[in-house]
Amino acid sequence: MARVPRTRSDDRTVPRPSDPVADGAAAPRPAPPAEADVPARVREVLTGYLAARRAEAHDTEPAFATAVVDTLSGFIHQGGKRLRPTLAWWGWRAAGGAAEGPAADAALRAASALELLQTFALVHDDVMDGSSTRRGAPAVHVAFAGAHRAHGWTGDPGRYGAGLAILVGDLALAWADDLLSEAGLPPAALARARVPWRAMRTEMVAGQYLDVQKQAEGDDSEELTLRIARLKTAAYTVERPLHLGAAMAGAGEAAVAALRGYGADVGVAFQLRDDVLGMFGDPARTGKPAGDDLREGKRTYLIAMGLRRAREAGDHAAHALISSALGDPGADGATVARVRAALTELGAADAVERRIAELTRRGLDRLDSPGIEPAAAEQLRGLARRATERTR
Amino acid sequence: MARVPRTRSDDRTVPRPSDPVADGAAAPRPAPPAEADVPARVREVLTGYLAARRAEAHDTEPAFATAVVDTLSGFIHQGGKRLRPTLAWWGWRAAGGAAEGPAADAALRAASALELLQTFALVHDDVMDGSSTRRGAPAVHVAFAGAHRAHGWTGDPGRYGAGLAILVGDLALAWADDLLSEAGLPPAALARARVPWRAMRTEMVAGQYLDVQKQAEGDDSEELTLRIARLKTAAYTVERPLHLGAAMAGAGEAAVAALRGYGADVGVAFQLRDDVLGMFGDPARTGKPAGDDLREGKRTYLIAMGLRRAREAGDHAAHALISSALGDPGADGATVARVRAALTELGAADAVERRIAELTRRGLDRLDSPGIEPAAAEQLRGLARRATERTR
Repeated sequence: MARVPRTRSDDRTVPRPSDPVADGAAAPRPAPPAEADVPARVREVLTGYLAARRAEAHDTEPAFATAVVDTLSGFIHQGGKRLRPTLAWWGWRAAGGAAEGPAADAALRAASALELLQTFALVHDDVMDGSSTRRGAPAVHVAFAGAHRAHGWTGDPGRYGAGLAILVGDLALAWADDLLSEAGLPPAALARARVPWRAMRTEMVAGQYLDVQKQAEGDDSEELTLRIARLKTAAYTVERPLHLGAAMAGAGEAAVAALRGYGADVGVAFQLRDDVLGMFGDPARTGKPAGDDLREGKRTYLIAMGLRRAREAGDHAAHALISSALGDPGADGATVARVRAALTELGAADAVERRIAELTRRGLDRLDSPGIEPAAAEQLRGLARRATERTR
Repeated sequence: MARVPRTRSDDRTVPRPSDPVADGAAAPRPAPPAEADVPARVREVLTGYLAARRAEAHDTEPAFATAVVDTLSGFIHQGGKRLRPTLAWWGWRAAGGAAEGPAADAALRAASALELLQTFALVHDDVMDGSSTRRGAPAVHVAFAGAHRAHGWTGDPGRYGAGLAILVGDLALAWADDLLSEAGLPPAALARARVPWRAMRTEMVAGQYLDVQKQAEGDDSEELTLRIARLKTAAYTVERPLHLGAAMAGAGEAAVAALRGYGADVGVAFQLRDDVLGMFGDPARTGKPAGDDLREGKRTYLIAMGLRRAREAGDHAAHALISSALGDPGADGATVARVRAALTELGAADAVERRIAELTRRGLDRLDSPGIEPAAAEQLRGLARRATERTR
């Protein structure tokens, strides 16, 4: 349940792997129809699936369809990049899955279930974290609490809002499983797909548990931050979607290991890039005021490293500066600039950049494994570069 | 997400269908080993399944296994009657499923997934409803909030408790799907099983939505109360578990319709019996002080009918008596006795009894359908009688 990076991954840093890739002097290859615009095809699948299920839900209980199902659909349609289904698609293609035809259609439908899974995670995370906005709009629980107030209903609006949001997330999780099961995969492919699917859902819950626990215990170690990034971003956003696609295609062990290795490293690098952009990014490009992570009190890897280095260097002033700005909603632009300068001076910014570069390089190396289709590897290389490159 | 009846169904009113049934002069039939004690076998399946998944979770993140997985397991092992898996088993047998052998084992494993589904529903319902106890112990979110306080952690204990309980429920829902998928059913049987499975999960969310919405809008109509009972108790506790079992066995349409019809009617009757016991039951038999529903403000069908009849009869005193006791935690024994007398005098108690009898009779009639195995039908008849009979 990767709260921190997901909004951004949807909204700013990650280009679509199907965007043209700068591949030197090679002639441009026209993409086969099925993969010319994977996100558009995912949206088509989701629109059709949700419409059919809404009709069933309306038969069961019209008010339920309006309140819960329509909220779920609206939330899904606010998302845009479809990063996880796209990665699952390239995992499928990397392992030799067909670009077109019934098998490809089934794989794309199964991959689309990842968007329902993400909806589940985002909506529940926002309840747990008490987040007020999501995708530029009020979080689901906040919107429902507002409706409660507007109607003057009985009871506590906050409890009502949380209750309805829990139900929206529950439905999204149940329907994610349904869509995977009904995607039209042959039984053997479905059984293979369920291996990463079951691991991923447990990892998502484990990652969110660690995040909630970390906040409760006030743990700001870099080690824990990386473990959470590993479970909440890498596994769920990159590694397991690729694994899912590869499993559907019947990939061998070496190919699965290579794709998962790529996903684990690039996924963490992606999270670290996100942390850096949160402090140093250009608001015009990130779509979010710089320093928002700081004001929201997010103990990112960058911040954790800065605090440790300040402690170790006996730099009390820098430590106090960062600590006091962390979680201070009123921290202004000048304060954010001072924290930026301190992180730079402490060497934390450079150290994180080195870590990103190292993880990215290591991840990219994994793509040279035998059993990975070169065209798909190229897509994944382009994605890794764009998701982790410096875009201050 | 059937909050109201489930605790009780687990704890007091429903005997196991495998209990000996008084069947007149017929010679006792020794039950085949597989079904001599269905709840015990379900417990065995769950214990094994949860142990294996705990080991995986521990590999992922040890603290997660201790905090979240162990809470989930502890909750499941507090339950006892295994009513829903038992009904799924008799649905399987009613439709001609084998009593023993690999197919029977797979069916029993799949049926056991219903306990994980129930855990999901109970834990999330308790968060939404702010319930403080469950199965005689603190509700999951309350226990986690207590741990937060005891450790003196940072942040709000209530928010932490709710967050952890949401995660326990999420994990239970995901693992329910996993257990169904991994039960060992042949692909065709699994595909058939997913029809009731997908309907049931949506119905559970829809039923809980209606319940939350009803409380918010203060709607106390009998009609809405029955619609909620239909979704929250009948569908999820009786009808769909039977449907699941029958679907796995490849039941024909007539048999499925008969079992679902039985489940819908007996399930609602079971909820109404539960409502009556909540007001009129003998605490020594129900394990719960009479009038607790009243104090907790539950607008049961019985209460809704009493209020309507008082209104229609212009009996302002009775209406004021019931209204003021409803939701009053301090309502004492004498007050509860007065409400009981009023409900009796208004004819509400008798009307509910008639409704229970009518639903039960109609449900039992459905079991005469062709395609229902007589031995299983007999088990279901015994269950219906015991779950709906008068036990003041």
